[in-house]
Amino acid sequence: MKALVYHGPGKKSWDDVPDPKILEPTDVIVKTDATTICGTDLHILKGDVPAVTPGRILGHEGVGTITEIGDAVTTLKVGDQVILSCVSACGKCIYCKQGVYSHCQAPEGAPGIGWIFGHLIDGTQAEYVRVPFAENSVYKLPETVSPEQGVILSDILPTGHEIGVQYGNVKAGDVVAVVGAGPVGLAAIATSKLYGPSKVVALDLDANRIEQARKFGATDGVLSSDPDWKDQVLALTDGLGVDVAIEAVGIPATWQMCVDLIRPAGTIANVGVHGTSVELALQDLWISNIDISMGLVNTNTLGTLLKMVASRQLDPDVFISHRFALGDIMEAYEVFENAAETKALKVILAAG
Amino acid sequence: MKALVYHGPGKKSWDDVPDPKILEPTDVIVKTDATTICGTDLHILKGDVPAVTPGRILGHEGVGTITEIGDAVTTLKVGDQVILSCVSACGKCIYCKQGVYSHCQAPEGAPGIGWIFGHLIDGTQAEYVRVPFAENSVYKLPETVSPEQGVILSDILPTGHEIGVQYGNVKAGDVVAVVGAGPVGLAAIATSKLYGPSKVVALDLDANRIEQARKFGATDGVLSSDPDWKDQVLALTDGLGVDVAIEAVGIPATWQMCVDLIRPAGTIANVGVHGTSVELALQDLWISNIDISMGLVNTNTLGTLLKMVASRQLDPDVFISHRFALGDIMEAYEVFENAAETKALKVILAAG
Repeated sequence: MKALVYHGPGKKSWDDVPDPKILEPTDVIVKTDATTICGTDLHILKGDVPAVTPGRILGHEGVGTITEIGDAVTTLKVGDQVILSCVSACGKCIYCKQGVYSHCQAPEGAPGIGWIFGHLIDGTQAEYVRVPFAENSVYKLPETVSPEQGVILSDILPTGHEIGVQYGNVKAGDVVAVVGAGPVGLAAIATSKLYGPSKVVALDLDANRIEQARKFGATDGVLSSDPDWKDQVLALTDGLGVDVAIEAVGIPATWQMCVDLIRPAGTIANVGVHGTSVELALQDLWISNIDISMGLVNTNTLGTLLKMVASRQLDPDVFISHRFALGDIMEAYEVFENAAETKALKVILAAG
Repeated sequence: MKALVYHGPGKKSWDDVPDPKILEPTDVIVKTDATTICGTDLHILKGDVPAVTPGRILGHEGVGTITEIGDAVTTLKVGDQVILSCVSACGKCIYCKQGVYSHCQAPEGAPGIGWIFGHLIDGTQAEYVRVPFAENSVYKLPETVSPEQGVILSDILPTGHEIGVQYGNVKAGDVVAVVGAGPVGLAAIATSKLYGPSKVVALDLDANRIEQARKFGATDGVLSSDPDWKDQVLALTDGLGVDVAIEAVGIPATWQMCVDLIRPAGTIANVGVHGTSVELALQDLWISNIDISMGLVNTNTLGTLLKMVASRQLDPDVFISHRFALGDIMEAYEVFENAAETKALKVILAAG
């Protein structure tokens, strides 16, 4: 088969590789129908994720049709079209049993980390994919949801929902600030609307992205390069600060923006993947009654979000900016890497 | 009347001062029956809390009997014996209406901070106390609860309960680590038991304090000076880490101990009052699915805890190590300041 293979920092190619095989009785093999590229793949390609070794097939999002099932699989069959969760969950360990699939203890990949596709095992940017722990890690695609819509449910929508909105405890009437209007920030904006916030404020350095954020449900936008960005947000909150600040960038400056914006008893939900530590000013914040959350998506709400998509209360199509044939993935990477120019959000790779 | 007056860093005396008067129609005046000294008072005396200015009467805990009521007070009467909350709540502002009394917006003292006794207005280490917003800030003492028991409910028990246990989300079966077995840590230990944790581990540098913690409900103790303190705690959690880590000291080292002990999807509840910032290693922790909470007590659970005390499910007496007459408060301070030698926990000052 063909697959997008990582060959060390800065190097990738669309290679001929052996077809995947069933290795465990809980595996299935799927033929890819649609996949996509994540910002994390770009981090890997920069060499920022040393656990990814040369020869690894990248990608952790996708929809595929089952072509083969392991001996232990009873609830899935050949021909089922399924969404692949970006997190592989054994379903048996202590974390899986509490729904914390992100920290699955199964030894596949490495114990304690549920994100293994395109990281610790071969991923989804390929014509075929071996899917471990399939019965706990895939969701059947309803007929009313398209494969490309399903791809948006593999990672980005659950991440914005679980790590941004649910961890952020967004409630009816809240003012929510989302710092960073990239794909995950937009997913937080879109899914926050399910909880009835009074205002959702998008902050970004890019005026186009802020404008775009309104399509996802942002009620207000503030350019974070404006010297008075903070005052602009406070003016939307009776001067008190926001109830929920969602960090969707992953750098100290945007983290600090969240701290600066949060009101007493509010929540900072960190979604961004950080490369350095930040300063937590406990000498000021101990008295603040704020809450700080963070984490890797569990995709334990993928099924719920799928129902919202199927019932047309959540629209994944707005995340899709570009479409390519799977074989044109090298070109798709180029478009995605140059998102500032191409305005790429999610680029869909569809198998013929 | 007599009162303990702050005269600048390192200076205090038991002075003759004017009796307090009703200033607002929502005030009451109480004659002190019992009060105590808090670690925060020692911080003030070191000059660590510059908002406290010379001439201020210290103290924010106490039980008193009402001697005078303001014109707007309808639910309290002269002769009622009441617990004074350490937090004064107007009951009308946006934070009070959500139960976040710690950030009361009333202009008494300073808007946005509910702790004003012995801080921004005169406090409770005095023969008489003016109590602002009395109907929202005092609780009638049941006959079955003694004044000295009531004093323990002014601050320390609600602080351990709300900021440690409730913010820490202690649940049945959890393993809870409490770092620091001083009065507030012990309050967290005692109130955590109301939620059915499987283990409560006390960590401290002082072996005596760890031993003492068992009287408050700790099931295990670990000396934090032991080189293998972390392994000792992990051994109590199947190697996974604790579900809840409660920081009850307020220095970077004990904060880091909590980070080192927490398991994925666990909660670090910071109760300690910090003087410096700490490093938050988001490059490692973004993926950890942990939650971090902090804050000033709201005393919104004081009434609940009072019921638990009245029904003998929570014992405040174990917090009381020393008893003095109110007029001997200078001696009581000496005992409390030298807690390492005197083994003082809470020292009760009782009016004659």
